[in-house]
Amino acid sequence: MVTNIVQEGLDAVEKQLRDIVNSDVDVLQEAGLHIIKSGGKRLRPQLGILAYLAAGGQDVERVVPMSAAIEMVHTATLVHDDINDHSLTRRGQITVHARWGRTFALLAGDYLFTKVYEMMAPYPSEYNVIMADATTKLVEGETLQAAAAKAGNMDRETYKSIISRKTASLFEAAARMGAMLADADEDLVESLATYAYNLGLTFQIIDDILDIIGDPETLGKPVGTDIAQNRGVMAAQNGGTAVKETAVAEIEDDPIAVMMANLRESGAVDVARMQAEETAKRARAALVNVPSSPAKTEMEALITAVLQRQN
Amino acid sequence: MVTNIVQEGLDAVEKQLRDIVNSDVDVLQEAGLHIIKSGGKRLRPQLGILAYLAAGGQDVERVVPMSAAIEMVHTATLVHDDINDHSLTRRGQITVHARWGRTFALLAGDYLFTKVYEMMAPYPSEYNVIMADATTKLVEGETLQAAAAKAGNMDRETYKSIISRKTASLFEAAARMGAMLADADEDLVESLATYAYNLGLTFQIIDDILDIIGDPETLGKPVGTDIAQNRGVMAAQNGGTAVKETAVAEIEDDPIAVMMANLRESGAVDVARMQAEETAKRARAALVNVPSSPAKTEMEALITAVLQRQN
Repeated sequence: MVTNIVQEGLDAVEKQLRDIVNSDVDVLQEAGLHIIKSGGKRLRPQLGILAYLAAGGQDVERVVPMSAAIEMVHTATLVHDDINDHSLTRRGQITVHARWGRTFALLAGDYLFTKVYEMMAPYPSEYNVIMADATTKLVEGETLQAAAAKAGNMDRETYKSIISRKTASLFEAAARMGAMLADADEDLVESLATYAYNLGLTFQIIDDILDIIGDPETLGKPVGTDIAQNRGVMAAQNGGTAVKETAVAEIEDDPIAVMMANLRESGAVDVARMQAEETAKRARAALVNVPSSPAKTEMEALITAVLQRQN
Repeated sequence: MVTNIVQEGLDAVEKQLRDIVNSDVDVLQEAGLHIIKSGGKRLRPQLGILAYLAAGGQDVERVVPMSAAIEMVHTATLVHDDINDHSLTRRGQITVHARWGRTFALLAGDYLFTKVYEMMAPYPSEYNVIMADATTKLVEGETLQAAAAKAGNMDRETYKSIISRKTASLFEAAARMGAMLADADEDLVESLATYAYNLGLTFQIIDDILDIIGDPETLGKPVGTDIAQNRGVMAAQNGGTAVKETAVAEIEDDPIAVMMANLRESGAVDVARMQAEETAKRARAALVNVPSSPAKTEMEALITAVLQRQN
């Protein structure tokens, strides 16, 4: 039942994402649609819709542009990330950067960013403040990650700050705005925002674990990218030093493959999984005071799905 | 008298531009302040302030965040342009990209973009729609330019479309929003917007001419960049072909220097200057129905200054 309403909302989000990319400049149109059509989990817009419904919202159309804008922020940063990471595939498809080159990928990412604000413009100021703040945090998180990787000093605190900003902030903003659009009271808004924030942390830790132990076929992207760049949860578990030591010791083999094998056996994955279970527990706890509803049940199920996902 | 009020406004814009860059992420803070402190003409915020005053606005503080946001859009795109153009200097300073590298320059540009919307969030929806639209056009203009340069097919129509989007749109948005904030009637808003749009065209044509005949010392940046990349007004005057022919013919000398000398002697600069005089005339004509005021006088003087500028 609720699943149908959520699906309706997600379909409308999908349509809006495609409709808003409407440039007469061919490369922006093609590159924009390419990244949007390559899909993704659409978890962030799903959170916007679920928080709205869990807070008693009745007209799902109200959260569609906001939820689409949230997904568009994420999409725009993916295009720029892939430039900086020199990634060739994303979601099983060639990246914008690999297909259209760096110059057009940079501009296509900028273009998608401008579309975020086109979608957000109709909402009142407080929503635009939340969106601007979450987007700033996202860029800061990406920057902290690049800086830590470059300096080779990824510790647990830095890692936490990175995933909080680059992932959890946008999850939180989606749920916060969804709840606000349903005119939820302050406590309910905070509960749903806290849930989403912790779900975001869980999601990112699992994402980083999958970079080590995941199956590239299932993931639709190469694994080991984070290790190669001395970043992510495993670098954090190892104080940012294990990677470099291993690289020096085992230079005669494929260094990335060797590092990944070592990390798998080091117990670092188990520690990371424990952290993910802890943040998942906090997400669950945040829902305690949220009134029962089909949307709440779906939000609880989402925690389990995020913890157990294989791609 | 009006100059004092404009200067007060510009000082407040300058302060806001610096204050809004307040990240605890060192590289974003340093790179952001670096590009802002390297200055620029601040023509766009000046237009926002002047249009507000010319439309009878009394409280210049009202246009400060909007005018700062307009300048920030411009600043963010400069950071990204310099990546794509491999530029090493800008406004007599090292570029962000040359000093901090491509990854951080890309992220610093994104960061400045997020700050635009932080500044715009307090304004009503219609202002955010105008800003999003102008920013989209700007990115489209940059993309058209890169595409035309790559394809080597810069004709006059393409050139006009490029400068209209990448420069004139933001000039127009500044004046339009300035006039709206003074509660000007629709005709007055359109007159001031049309003025600024044509001033923007004039500014860009002169900018492209200066890339050919300007003095690098006075400009604070290298000249010949556009020619080297087969773009700009001179490529347009020559149907995008002169550059390549010259390059083949004179390959034994410094090809850029040779092209610049040829273009100076070809009459193309004179044609471009005639176009700039035509758009300047349109800017002046748009002011006819604007009531006399010190701000209007200053806007008229700006047309002459833009036409005659040497840097």
